[in-house]
Amino acid sequence: MSMSASLIDIDDLVGRHVADLREAAEAAYARTFHSRYSERPTDPAYGEDPFGEGQAAFDATLERGLALDQPGTGGRVAGEVSPYGLDLSISYPAVEPSALLDAASDALPAWRAAGPDVRAALCVEMLDRLGARAHELGLAVHHTSGQPRVMAFQAGGPHALDRGLEAVTYAHAAMTRHASHARWEKPGKRPTVLDKTFHVAPRGVAVAIGCRTFPTWNGLPGIMASLATGNPIVVKPHPSTILPLALVVEVAQGVLTEAGFSPHVVTLAAEAPDTGIAKDLVTDPRVKVVDFTGSTAFGEWLEVNASQARVYTEKAGVNSIVLDGTDHAEGMFDNLAFSLSLYSGQMCTTPQAIFLPRDGIDTDEGHLTFEEVGERVAGALGKLLEPAEKGVEVLGAIGDTSIVERLDEVASLGEVVARSEAVEHPAAPEAVVRTPLVLAVDAADTEAYDTERFGPIAFLVGTASTDHSLELVRDLVQRRGAITFGVHTREDKVRTQATEVALDAGVSVSFDLTRNVFVNQTSAFSDFHATGANPAANASLVDEAFVVGRFHLVETRMHAPVEDGD
Amino acid sequence: MSMSASLIDIDDLVGRHVADLREAAEAAYARTFHSRYSERPTDPAYGEDPFGEGQAAFDATLERGLALDQPGTGGRVAGEVSPYGLDLSISYPAVEPSALLDAASDALPAWRAAGPDVRAALCVEMLDRLGARAHELGLAVHHTSGQPRVMAFQAGGPHALDRGLEAVTYAHAAMTRHASHARWEKPGKRPTVLDKTFHVAPRGVAVAIGCRTFPTWNGLPGIMASLATGNPIVVKPHPSTILPLALVVEVAQGVLTEAGFSPHVVTLAAEAPDTGIAKDLVTDPRVKVVDFTGSTAFGEWLEVNASQARVYTEKAGVNSIVLDGTDHAEGMFDNLAFSLSLYSGQMCTTPQAIFLPRDGIDTDEGHLTFEEVGERVAGALGKLLEPAEKGVEVLGAIGDTSIVERLDEVASLGEVVARSEAVEHPAAPEAVVRTPLVLAVDAADTEAYDTERFGPIAFLVGTASTDHSLELVRDLVQRRGAITFGVHTREDKVRTQATEVALDAGVSVSFDLTRNVFVNQTSAFSDFHATGANPAANASLVDEAFVVGRFHLVETRMHAPVEDGD
Repeated sequence: MSMSASLIDIDDLVGRHVADLREAAEAAYARTFHSRYSERPTDPAYGEDPFGEGQAAFDATLERGLALDQPGTGGRVAGEVSPYGLDLSISYPAVEPSALLDAASDALPAWRAAGPDVRAALCVEMLDRLGARAHELGLAVHHTSGQPRVMAFQAGGPHALDRGLEAVTYAHAAMTRHASHARWEKPGKRPTVLDKTFHVAPRGVAVAIGCRTFPTWNGLPGIMASLATGNPIVVKPHPSTILPLALVVEVAQGVLTEAGFSPHVVTLAAEAPDTGIAKDLVTDPRVKVVDFTGSTAFGEWLEVNASQARVYTEKAGVNSIVLDGTDHAEGMFDNLAFSLSLYSGQMCTTPQAIFLPRDGIDTDEGHLTFEEVGERVAGALGKLLEPAEKGVEVLGAIGDTSIVERLDEVASLGEVVARSEAVEHPAAPEAVVRTPLVLAVDAADTEAYDTERFGPIAFLVGTASTDHSLELVRDLVQRRGAITFGVHTREDKVRTQATEVALDAGVSVSFDLTRNVFVNQTSAFSDFHATGANPAANASLVDEAFVVGRFHLVETRMHAPVEDGD
Repeated sequence: MSMSASLIDIDDLVGRHVADLREAAEAAYARTFHSRYSERPTDPAYGEDPFGEGQAAFDATLERGLALDQPGTGGRVAGEVSPYGLDLSISYPAVEPSALLDAASDALPAWRAAGPDVRAALCVEMLDRLGARAHELGLAVHHTSGQPRVMAFQAGGPHALDRGLEAVTYAHAAMTRHASHARWEKPGKRPTVLDKTFHVAPRGVAVAIGCRTFPTWNGLPGIMASLATGNPIVVKPHPSTILPLALVVEVAQGVLTEAGFSPHVVTLAAEAPDTGIAKDLVTDPRVKVVDFTGSTAFGEWLEVNASQARVYTEKAGVNSIVLDGTDHAEGMFDNLAFSLSLYSGQMCTTPQAIFLPRDGIDTDEGHLTFEEVGERVAGALGKLLEPAEKGVEVLGAIGDTSIVERLDEVASLGEVVARSEAVEHPAAPEAVVRTPLVLAVDAADTEAYDTERFGPIAFLVGTASTDHSLELVRDLVQRRGAITFGVHTREDKVRTQATEVALDAGVSVSFDLTRNVFVNQTSAFSDFHATGANPAANASLVDEAFVVGRFHLVETRMHAPVEDGD
C-alpha cells in the first residue's frame, strides 16, 4: 500500500467528476443522448492532427513498452499478431496468479476506505486520460482485433469509454443512493434514537476476462464497475488482444499512484495462449467478482465453477431478423447489408438468421419473392463493399483462422445467396478479408441456422408466415440466446406481436431500421446491450443489476447520545 | 386469465399507493424511521377491541377454512400442531407442482402487462388488507411457530408487513427509475433520432419457500418483490407453519380477483412434511426466481441445483458478541439477557458466541472477572424470565423437538453459566418452554461454539484479549456466516477495529446496546437484515440487489417519424 502523498488534487477531481456523474445519471435514467468522449476522430479534443499524433503515440508505445507496476515472475509474455501485418514487437510481464491476488488483497482496505466519491472520481479520471489517448487506443484495437480503422477508434475508444463511464455512473449512483449516516427516531413517549452509519463494502477481488474482438468495449464496463465499487481488479486480456487492455491498466495505475493509492488496485495478467491462468484466477476464494465476454462453453464453466464469485457473462447467441414487409425496401437492404458486413460479422450482435415467409414480402417497391429478397441482399452487399478499398473499411480483417475454416464448412448448408469473397486489402496484402456468406434455407433446416456460427455467415430462412417466423424467434432466443433482434414490417399488429415475443424471450428489438442506425449497435446511456434475460448473457450493459452485486452495505449503529445518561 | 371487470378502482389505488411508495422510498434512502403498520397491538387501526376481534376472526378462519382458488388434486394437506396445544383443525388443498406452475405461467402475460404502478399498488393493497387482519395473522404465527403472543403479533404482523412494503418500495423504485419512453437525438448535421420504449419484463415464475420460525417476516419480502416485478409466485410454506402464509395467499388472491387478474398469480403449495415438493418446484425450467429462508444444507443445495433461477437465500450462521468493556453494565447484561431469551433463541439473529478476555472487562461498576460476567448474565436472565408468566411472554414455546434434544447434547461442552430450565406455561401446560443455556468455554474449544447451535444456546468464550476476540469473529463470520454482531466497549479505538472486522467479514455491527434496542432486531426501511456478504445469506432484506435481479428491461426502438420521409 502506497503511503505517498497525492500528486493530484483529489478534492478538485471529486468536485468536478462527481457533478458530471450525477448529470450522466440523469441522462441514463432518462435514456436520452449522453456522451463524454467524441466519436468524431477529428474532434479538436484529440489534437491538431489527431490521426498523425495518434499514430506517433502508438508507435512510441510499441517502442518503449508499457510502464506497469506489479508483481511479476521476471519472464515476459508476447505473441500478439496484427491482422494487418504490423510487427507488434511488444511484451508484457509474465505473472503468477496468486501473486497478483495477494497484491490486490493487500490493496483492498485503502481502496475501500477511499469511499464512493473518490473512487468514482478516479475512475472518471482514468477514462479521461484514456480519452486523450483515444487514437492510440483505437490503433491498439485495430492492430490486434482486426477491426477497421475508424470503427476501432470509435468502438474501441470513445464508445468503450462511454460504456465505462456508464458503469461508473451506475455504480456511483447505487453506492450513494442511501444516506451514509442517519439518525433514526422511533416515536413514542420516550423516543428510541439510534445513530447509524452505512459503509459500502466491496465483495473482494475482481477479475475481468477480456474478449478477442472488443477488448475495451466489452471490458471497460466490468473493470470500471468493479473498481468504482471498491474491488481491486486483475485484468486478464485475451492472448490475441492484450495491448488495448494493457493501455487501460497502465493509465489506471498512473492515476492510482498519483492519487496515493497502490497501483496493485489494477493489475494486468497477460498470458500466452492456452496457459489457462484464467481458471486459476477465477476459482481462487479471494475472487468475488468475475466479468467475462467470450465463448458459451467458458461462460457456462464460469457460472458453475466460480461459484464463490458473482459472475457476469456475455456469451454467444443466435441473433434474428424478421422480415414481414417494409415501406423503404432500399433502406432496409442497405441497412441489413451493413449489419451483416460490419467487422466481418465478428460481433456478438451481428444478425445470423433472417426469417421471412417463403412466399416473400410486401414492400414500397411491390411484392418481393423470397428469391428476390436474396438478390436484393446480395446486391446491397456488393454496393456496400465494392471497390475493395471501401469494403475493407467496413469489413476489417479476420484474425481468427477458425472463422475462415467455418466459412468453407457451412457453404454447403444451403443455397448460396451471396458468396463469401476474399478481398485484397489495398494497404495490407496479408490481411484476411472476406465478404459475408449468405445462404438460403428452409425453416426445417435447423441444423444450418440453429447454432451460433460466429463470423460473416447469415441465413435467409423461409417460413410459412410472419407468425411462424416470430414463433421460431421466440423458441430460438429462449434456447440459444440472442443479443439483438430486428423486425421490418408495415403492420402495427406485427410490431405488437414481436414485442410480446421480445418480452417472452427477453431480447430487445429494433423496428424498421432503414437509415444510419444498425441493429448491432447500441449507445451507452440509452440502449442496454443485452438484457441478461436469455442464455446469451446473464447481465446487461449497463443497468442497476450490473453494479449492485459488486458491493454490500455494512451498517454500524449505536444509541444516540442522551442528556440524562439513560 | 380472468377477463372479468375490476371490482376495485385501480386508478384510485395507484394514485394513493404509488404516492405512498415514493414517500417510503425517500425514507428508505434516508434510512430514517418509516412504518405503515402500527406495532402497537391496541392501535385503533386494529379495531375497538383488537385482541377480542382478532381472536374471533382467527377462530372463524379456523372454522371456515381458507378460500383459495387454484388447481388442486382434490386431496387435502393438514398437520400443523400448535406448540400451545390449540387444536388447529385446518387443512389446505393438496397440489401438483406442475399444475401450479402451468397456472402461474398462464397468468404471467397479463400480470406483466399490468405494469409497475398497477402491480405495486395491488401489492400495497394486499399488505393493507393483511394489516387489517394483523391480529389474526399474529395468532396464526403464534399458534404455529410458537412465538410469544405479542411478539408474534408484531414480528408476524406489522413488522413483516413493513418488510413486505419495503420490498415493494424498492421494486417500484427500481422498475420506474428509467424512463419508459425516450426520444434519443444524436447531434450532428442531420441528427439521428430514435424513439425508444423500455418494458419491465419479469424473469418468469417465482417460488418462495417459507421458514418454520418467521413465515411472514422472512417470507413477505421475497413474495412482494417477485410479485411487484411481475413474476407470478408459488408460495411453499414450511409444513409446520402453513397458516400464516395461507392467509397471505388468500388475501392476495382476493385483491387479484377484484382487480380483474387471475388469482393464479399467487398460489399456495401446502405440503405434508417430507414430501419434497420444494425440489420439484425450484428445479422446473419455468421457475426463474427462488426465495428461501432455512437450513444451510438446503440453501446450498438450492444455490447449486436451481441454477436456472436467481436464488435468494438466508441460511444459518454463528452470531457473535464481543465484550470489551461498558459504561453501563446493568443495561448491557439486561439487554444481552433479552437477546438470548427472545423466542427461546429461535432466531437467525440470536447471539451464540460471546467473546470476552479471560481476565475480564472494565465497567462502570469496576472490573468484572470472566466468572463475574457469567454470574451477571445468569442473574439478568433470572430477572428477565421469572416468574414464569412473565418469562413465557419473552421465551414463547419450542415447536421443534430437535432443539430440546440439542440442549441436552451440548450441556457437557462447557462449564454451565446458566442452566436451561423447563418453564411451565401458566396457560398452556403442554407448551415446551426452556430458558437459555449458557456455557463458558475457552477460545480453543472451537468444537463447542464454532458451529450453529440453533435454539437457546450461548457460549461465553474466553480469549487472550479483545484483539483476539475480534480476530476470532472475523474468521468465524467469514467461514460460518453471521446475521448479527454486537460489541460493548468504552474505547473508540475498539469501535474502529470492530468496524474494520465488520467490513472485512461483511456483517453489520451494533455497538453498546444497553437500552430497548436489541442486536437481534432490525427495522424495515432503516436497518438492513443480513448483508449478503457472508455465508449466512446471499441477500439482504431489503436493498437494491434484492429486487433488480427479478426483472429485466427489454427495449423496443425505431426511427422517429420525420417530415421528409427520409
